[in-house]
Amino acid sequence: MRELKDRILADGRNMGGGILNVNSFLNHQVDCGLMVRIGQELASRFAADEANKVLTAEISGIAPALDVGAALEVPVVFARKIWSITMPPDSYERMVPSHTKGTMVQLIVAREFLTPDDKVLIVDDFLASGKTIGALASLVEESGAVLAGIGAVIEKAFEGGRERLAHLNVPIESVVIIESMEDDKIVFR
Amino acid sequence: MRELKDRILADGRNMGGGILNVNSFLNHQVDCGLMVRIGQELASRFAADEANKVLTAEISGIAPALDVGAALEVPVVFARKIWSITMPPDSYERMVPSHTKGTMVQLIVAREFLTPDDKVLIVDDFLASGKTIGALASLVEESGAVLAGIGAVIEKAFEGGRERLAHLNVPIESVVIIESMEDDKIVFR
Repeated sequence: MRELKDRILADGRNMGGGILNVNSFLNHQVDCGLMVRIGQELASRFAADEANKVLTAEISGIAPALDVGAALEVPVVFARKIWSITMPPDSYERMVPSHTKGTMVQLIVAREFLTPDDKVLIVDDFLASGKTIGALASLVEESGAVLAGIGAVIEKAFEGGRERLAHLNVPIESVVIIESMEDDKIVFR
Repeated sequence: MRELKDRILADGRNMGGGILNVNSFLNHQVDCGLMVRIGQELASRFAADEANKVLTAEISGIAPALDVGAALEVPVVFARKIWSITMPPDSYERMVPSHTKGTMVQLIVAREFLTPDDKVLIVDDFLASGKTIGALASLVEESGAVLAGIGAVIEKAFEGGRERLAHLNVPIESVVIIESMEDDKIVFR
């Protein structure tokens, strides 16, 4: 998707250590029009898979997941990272490391929103190490739902997430793929 | 908005203590079509105010804010609650109590995304005590931006948020207003 590549080159910041700061249009400030087009692009790649639900992880996954859900006309479930009194104690739960926060975070989904009747498309902003998406896939498996595919806005190929998720045997689609971020450059595949 | 009232009566859960659980369509699982219509409804009420930016607080504010932003064709900034290495150390910051988490949470906005050139519409899922929205308004004031108005999906009138925010002298619009939640009932204004 040329528009997203151009935007990353214009407004993304390579912070070193493999961290891409896209706070100005994706992660803190959101360009709503761009996000709608990203959602449509991802939705088109999974149009044949008949997912009835999109699953993402708060926080930054919410925006692209909502626009994929809107395009596919299915609901979006976002795994919560913080317990609240509205979450049932028997909820599905995983611990995953956060790349940008340097700590472990929880992913929590109430059982009623992932069931064996569901066919689930996982959507996230980044596919990097694949650990967050892998944990979401593991929640899907535990629930008895079927995993239809995995969609990401930006894949950092050099972090090996695609290889880590290969055993899931589902289509993995990224809107753009970054091959390397060495020497302050951003090189797309 | 009749559709939202009907949905709250059908699928919302009055958990006592003034807590309304709308996890099945707004806060954990999102009905994307309903959310688009909520966004259009709120956007229509502020169409004359010429906001150039929507500000919300993660997490549950993101979905309605994105759909208001999409309808108004302006970007959405969501105040982060957790520091990440992509957030500048001089970011605007406030501490506010969380109603459903029983703890204090931070609201953090990078300075570059709130400037004196901005006219800001604050959007959140709930207007309850008004403390979160009041903290967002305080960030807007500190930045030198103009506050255009405040929009909420669900107002719990019995928590006094509207009165707490009255000194801001801006329009406050809620898609639905709940008058009381006593005795397991949900009574709309």
